[in-house]
Amino acid sequence: MAIDLYWGSGSPYSWRVLLALEYKKLPYTSHLLQFSKQEHKSAQMLKMNPRGRVPVLKDGEGDSAYVCFESLAILTYLDRKYPEPPLFGRSAEEAGTVMRVICEYQVYVEEHITRIIAAIFFQGLEGKLDDIAKAMQVVASEARTIENRLAHSAWLVGESLSAADLVVYPGIQLLLRALERREAQELKARFLPLETHYPALAAWMRRVEALPGYERTFPPHWRESMAPE
Amino acid sequence: MAIDLYWGSGSPYSWRVLLALEYKKLPYTSHLLQFSKQEHKSAQMLKMNPRGRVPVLKDGEGDSAYVCFESLAILTYLDRKYPEPPLFGRSAEEAGTVMRVICEYQVYVEEHITRIIAAIFFQGLEGKLDDIAKAMQVVASEARTIENRLAHSAWLVGESLSAADLVVYPGIQLLLRALERREAQELKARFLPLETHYPALAAWMRRVEALPGYERTFPPHWRESMAPE
Repeated sequence: MAIDLYWGSGSPYSWRVLLALEYKKLPYTSHLLQFSKQEHKSAQMLKMNPRGRVPVLKDGEGDSAYVCFESLAILTYLDRKYPEPPLFGRSAEEAGTVMRVICEYQVYVEEHITRIIAAIFFQGLEGKLDDIAKAMQVVASEARTIENRLAHSAWLVGESLSAADLVVYPGIQLLLRALERREAQELKARFLPLETHYPALAAWMRRVEALPGYERTFPPHWRESMAPE
Repeated sequence: MAIDLYWGSGSPYSWRVLLALEYKKLPYTSHLLQFSKQEHKSAQMLKMNPRGRVPVLKDGEGDSAYVCFESLAILTYLDRKYPEPPLFGRSAEEAGTVMRVICEYQVYVEEHITRIIAAIFFQGLEGKLDDIAKAMQVVASEARTIENRLAHSAWLVGESLSAADLVVYPGIQLLLRALERREAQELKARFLPLETHYPALAAWMRRVEALPGYERTFPPHWRESMAPE
């Protein structure tokens, strides 16, 4: 077994896979690519993933190596290959519910978070505050559903961490980071502080952050920008 | 075992699950809901899926029944509960690749197909022909990738039918149906006839349609509108 992970700092999709590798205690060689240098579009990377996106996971050496991309596909592969501890439950019913919560996040939440983040970090909020406020409303309402779920159990599905937690967590982290920006002052009112508006969600985030190896998954460039000024 | 499937005619998500049930030769009670009568939003349906969407699958009776929704989650459940024949491959590597192809379809193709279909069937093309032509371009290019894949194997992943085939097929069928409309005359030029532009894709569609039980999965209201006038 020789796992290589190619990833980018701050990519929520990469973060999911890092969390999975740490949770399963799988040794891996970490290849942190610099988006600013277009390292994810290098010839070597395009050979593995023609779409030039991260994360990409390679397992094994030489011609027999297996290459996988798309974070949910990598989680699926890792869980079949290295089943303990499981990411998709211990029964068909749990597997179905884990995947259901993942699909619901992807279909009803993710695009709104992506739109909010893109507006705050890259495009600016000017002229689209109404649109982004609407997206924020959807996210706040979906977060309420998650909050209710977490009020009754420690993890999103059942009594153990699952792929659902790993898929959702990085997106929420990214959103929180965007809402910290001064431009997002008005937007964040209904969401932050998380501990007040969504106490169970906040406790769940602390639970993820207490997982062994979590520190190794934290986006390195976030740490830099958090250094005392 | 008593499986109940609640579904709607022409819903590509429902179609995936119908195909899976037929492929696995699982007996099920079919509940065809009328969208026009809002039957998918009835109290009984909302109790099972608060989002009021189909398909919804119920397995078992009474309090111990398991309810699942979101088509990919239902496929995941069915494959864990009734493993033969498999929908997610026979190895971790196959499972990873099946999920990768599904994710690629969902991330890079599906939204464009949905936009094209919505414009042709519901909103009209007026004023958005440029936008829809662009979406069609993306779909045509992604169909080329699928064509190349199918030029070398009978199914999207490996030597057997998989969940990838079941996820992609209904979307392509819906697109073809939309392109048959007179309004879509200009759009379809680069795509149809499928046999000429994408011969391997066309042959793959015939292969899906030759599966035992396929006829039972075909959207009933399509059949009506195809009757001689």
